[in-house]
Amino acid sequence: MNSEFDIIQQYFDWQPSSDSVAIGIGDDAAVLNLSHRQGQQLVISVDTLIEGVHFPKNTPAEAIGHKALAVNLSDLAAMGAEPAWFTLALSLPESNQAWLNDFSAALKQLADQYNIQLIGGDTTRGDLSLTLQVMGFVETGKALLRSGAMVNDKIYVTGTLGDAAIGLAMLQNRLDASSYTQKARHFCQKALNYPQPQHCISQIIKHYATACLDISDGLLQDLGHILNASKVGAQLDLSSIPLSKSALELGRNQALPYALSGGDDYQLLFTVGPEKEQQLQNVLKDNNNKDLKISCIGKIDDKNEGKITDYLGHVINTAGYQHF
Amino acid sequence: MNSEFDIIQQYFDWQPSSDSVAIGIGDDAAVLNLSHRQGQQLVISVDTLIEGVHFPKNTPAEAIGHKALAVNLSDLAAMGAEPAWFTLALSLPESNQAWLNDFSAALKQLADQYNIQLIGGDTTRGDLSLTLQVMGFVETGKALLRSGAMVNDKIYVTGTLGDAAIGLAMLQNRLDASSYTQKARHFCQKALNYPQPQHCISQIIKHYATACLDISDGLLQDLGHILNASKVGAQLDLSSIPLSKSALELGRNQALPYALSGGDDYQLLFTVGPEKEQQLQNVLKDNNNKDLKISCIGKIDDKNEGKITDYLGHVINTAGYQHF
Repeated sequence: MNSEFDIIQQYFDWQPSSDSVAIGIGDDAAVLNLSHRQGQQLVISVDTLIEGVHFPKNTPAEAIGHKALAVNLSDLAAMGAEPAWFTLALSLPESNQAWLNDFSAALKQLADQYNIQLIGGDTTRGDLSLTLQVMGFVETGKALLRSGAMVNDKIYVTGTLGDAAIGLAMLQNRLDASSYTQKARHFCQKALNYPQPQHCISQIIKHYATACLDISDGLLQDLGHILNASKVGAQLDLSSIPLSKSALELGRNQALPYALSGGDDYQLLFTVGPEKEQQLQNVLKDNNNKDLKISCIGKIDDKNEGKITDYLGHVINTAGYQHF
Repeated sequence: MNSEFDIIQQYFDWQPSSDSVAIGIGDDAAVLNLSHRQGQQLVISVDTLIEGVHFPKNTPAEAIGHKALAVNLSDLAAMGAEPAWFTLALSLPESNQAWLNDFSAALKQLADQYNIQLIGGDTTRGDLSLTLQVMGFVETGKALLRSGAMVNDKIYVTGTLGDAAIGLAMLQNRLDASSYTQKARHFCQKALNYPQPQHCISQIIKHYATACLDISDGLLQDLGHILNASKVGAQLDLSSIPLSKSALELGRNQALPYALSGGDDYQLLFTVGPEKEQQLQNVLKDNNNKDLKISCIGKIDDKNEGKITDYLGHVINTAGYQHF
């Protein structure tokens, strides 16, 4: 058995590649330079993942390492913030070398990809759970909030929805995986275990969006958060909800509930005013990057504050995943 | 049952009393102003507390709320940093209103006392555990590190040691509580459940200390961290280890192991160069605050790098509490 000190030193004491870290792992606290952050605000988010709640038992260590950081980076993307640092609190039933190797390698790979530095950690013995706190920076006053949606704004999402929820349903045998192609099974499993934070597109849409969040609890519930914060309602065009080819193997009607309420998408949901919509479309077209896919799925209205209706005016139930 | 969203809103959405918080709880992330932090560095520490590991089952909710923040504030004190913000990740087996009321009231009381703002949270369902991350500020280059101890520095501790460990031993019936006065039982229980972060004295000693940390794993183990980081050894005068009247009810010889290896003290351990020792003593005498008690317990030497000896040259075993 290793001591807590050894675990941090052995698996997580990566040399910081940024001079923003004056003192990293190894003292009572990290010390971070802010001298080149004039005109910026600090953006902070914290998320816990617990085995059996946020990921199934027997999820591979590398998937846990990736997902734990990815869902936190997704919160920074939702604010339009640039990643800077993170801390890791890891609770483990035992010090398992193979597990720690796989976990820390995946964590480091994603951290390097998004240029975010691990600056502090705490390991404890207990059931498997992780709490990550990510920190980033945004130009003062430019953070994308939930509260800025205005009547007549269009509602957009990035990527496709429901894939991760379908992957989970296959894993838990609520869907018969053998009915689908291997490609679809693999795609949905990857969407569940290896979500990709939408930072690239976030750095574009932050100049156009009036409100934004990342979809973690399901489209309807998360749209409800924007509507409540912005004191508006919304009309959704259910036929425009973007579904992947893999999801469509279920048939559109069977796939749609996963896209509406499944959760774990980590795509961005955002609103854009009519005067900026064309500009945004042009920028994305010029960018010519097929990963930067966005879909208009409806518009903000003033008919039913906090309520979501379809284009026939029928109220759509927003109940999604609840932790309690 | 409440939803996660309701729990944060109902129990933890305290109005920020500082204009450093641009966006607090309720969006994807908090947004924090740094405009008045020129010439300062950000100091960050994270600690997890798990029921049954860091505090016994059936610990009162208010003690958990207090201690979780206190041990994190203690890390900021050990760096000489001024508290600013914290986040709370709380895992609970169920949403218990009475528990949440007691917990959040104690947390808020201590937060108000040290002027630290709760700026983000995540609640999940699971075994009882808490991860707090605290953030504070220090003048650039002035953080108290573990690595600055020099040969011939004197070694000091604040307060008295071993009281919390004795309180835990009584609670777990490893000591027969009925053999001690009610006053001693109460004092040691309070030391265990309601540690006081040493911020007041930290703001004084930061001008004099060459190295500093807070004692969480026991004096010997934590002194070992300073010695290893500073590449020096130490001679301890065991007769100078400060013990409370309550601890002395066990007799000095029986109390001493609790003070040396018990842990959970959250007193500061620091080193002072010979040229500044008298100045520090004078400042503390002038301050005339009996809470600002410090004791010289030994000195740094170059005889055995990383080793602790007594004044007869015998090596003292540094094994303390290990999480793994």
